[in-house]
Amino acid sequence: MSQPIILLMRTISDDYLQTLKKAAQGYQLVTAEESATINLDDVEIIISWRDDLGNKILASPTSQLKWVQVYSAGVDDLPLDKLKEKKILLSNASGVHGIPISETVIGMLLSHYRGLHLASINQLDNKWDNRIKVTELNGQSLLIVGTGAIGRQLAKVATVLGVNVYGLNRSGYPLDDFIETYPQADIDRVLPEMDIVINILPLTSETHYFYDTDRFQLMKDGVVFINVGRGPSVNTASLIEACQSGKVGFAGIDVFEEEPLPVDNPLWQMENVLITPHISGKTTQYNARFFDILMDNLQEYLKRGQLVRNQVQIDQGY
Amino acid sequence: MSQPIILLMRTISDDYLQTLKKAAQGYQLVTAEESATINLDDVEIIISWRDDLGNKILASPTSQLKWVQVYSAGVDDLPLDKLKEKKILLSNASGVHGIPISETVIGMLLSHYRGLHLASINQLDNKWDNRIKVTELNGQSLLIVGTGAIGRQLAKVATVLGVNVYGLNRSGYPLDDFIETYPQADIDRVLPEMDIVINILPLTSETHYFYDTDRFQLMKDGVVFINVGRGPSVNTASLIEACQSGKVGFAGIDVFEEEPLPVDNPLWQMENVLITPHISGKTTQYNARFFDILMDNLQEYLKRGQLVRNQVQIDQGY
Repeated sequence: MSQPIILLMRTISDDYLQTLKKAAQGYQLVTAEESATINLDDVEIIISWRDDLGNKILASPTSQLKWVQVYSAGVDDLPLDKLKEKKILLSNASGVHGIPISETVIGMLLSHYRGLHLASINQLDNKWDNRIKVTELNGQSLLIVGTGAIGRQLAKVATVLGVNVYGLNRSGYPLDDFIETYPQADIDRVLPEMDIVINILPLTSETHYFYDTDRFQLMKDGVVFINVGRGPSVNTASLIEACQSGKVGFAGIDVFEEEPLPVDNPLWQMENVLITPHISGKTTQYNARFFDILMDNLQEYLKRGQLVRNQVQIDQGY
Repeated sequence: MSQPIILLMRTISDDYLQTLKKAAQGYQLVTAEESATINLDDVEIIISWRDDLGNKILASPTSQLKWVQVYSAGVDDLPLDKLKEKKILLSNASGVHGIPISETVIGMLLSHYRGLHLASINQLDNKWDNRIKVTELNGQSLLIVGTGAIGRQLAKVATVLGVNVYGLNRSGYPLDDFIETYPQADIDRVLPEMDIVINILPLTSETHYFYDTDRFQLMKDGVVFINVGRGPSVNTASLIEACQSGKVGFAGIDVFEEEPLPVDNPLWQMENVLITPHISGKTTQYNARFFDILMDNLQEYLKRGQLVRNQVQIDQGY
């Protein structure tokens, strides 16, 4: 029998590679570039998904694949049905994004409330305008839609900033740092009460176009809307309309239905919109945190054939 | 003997005026506009300083003035020697700014670390650039120069964001939420260690040009420098040079030696500088918080002739 393979679909630094090698005795470590030289059936573990190779492996009835550890938090790009059918373990990088994304959200909110966004627009024209409308984030009510690792870190920081933090999750289970959490079914009752709505939902069939014209209409006039979840959770046309009408007073948008956001999209030139190019989760700490998750899972997988961190419930899609 | 007068040099809303009237039985409330109709010698309390009227009152040897409650935190514009000579109580609005200014500082820092500032510049050109250099505020070391009400609120929030917070104050007295505080004399020893330096010093003869070329040279290469204190604490020419050379990697500047910042100042067009037009303390909550201080002091003044909040130590200038 040939040696089982760990297939690395993403370059990792030498330090990490050495640590990985030492932990995975008996396994052959192969990079995507070297994959032509192996029998893909021998791949037992995939680290960081890539469609071309991944789908080829999944398609083989004699594949030995048992575990996929992806590099992202979202798994909506993966062939979940196929993974489920073949009973392949799947784990994501959830948690790696808690700090960077919550920092981006707080930064977007303060850019708006403290006038920084308008000040940087004025700065490009050497324009001093101290009549910019400025108020405080302190005291606002904020709804976090999706209370996973990112939402919880965000709630912790927002609470210290004097924000009244509410959450929405599947069943409405309670959590620290949230004044109250509501079940997802209550969304339309809760939305009208909130000064700020933060989308951190994963993308599933249930959350596609979760924010459409009807839902924006339910929100407070002048609501602040932030999307650091997934682009297709928001109907772009509805968002544009809501920002144009003033229903949405300020929007901070990091993810879009089409990326890069097309150059002729009207969102670009709206002063009440801050666009970031899908960088809210970007961080120089990413690899270190990802590697922690990977190593914890690898040790447990080698001992007991199971995972300890971030196993995806494939039925739920996250 | 004529009725003592409270002279209001700033318009306050009717609600507050009624509350003030009720509390100050026996006093006549006079606005600046009505001041021509009174004998200025009868003014015992001034609320919110104005040079023209204030200096006239101070100049009179028969003035009954006993207390000045200013509307700002800084008192560097007031004739402190004269107030001291005449033993007039002075109180400021310190504390009103803790929340708004700390929010502005955190917003400036996150705008830098999370790429929001560069993203808004790119947005004006409909430009999607996800290679923007992005890192985390989490884990940075931050020195707060001036640990008054603003510095303490800032320390509290920054600590929850995972920042390593250090402080500098006159004697180095310890404070919650600071890993360590240093006496002002240690500044040149501490500066080289810090990723971020926040100036919140009041303006006194000792703090004029506190940040000059030598001091910027002592800082880390690429340091983040924020000034929400007073403009003249920084030598503008030194700051420009430090931002141009990259010694200062990013600067968030709200206050300037000359305001408005002259239209031809090179700071305007630097991508690593975020300019706000002296609005870091601006807030819709200002009047409510100021009025709280005023009323607490008024009650104590009427009972015991002294103040309970924010009395300025005139010798120290804050």
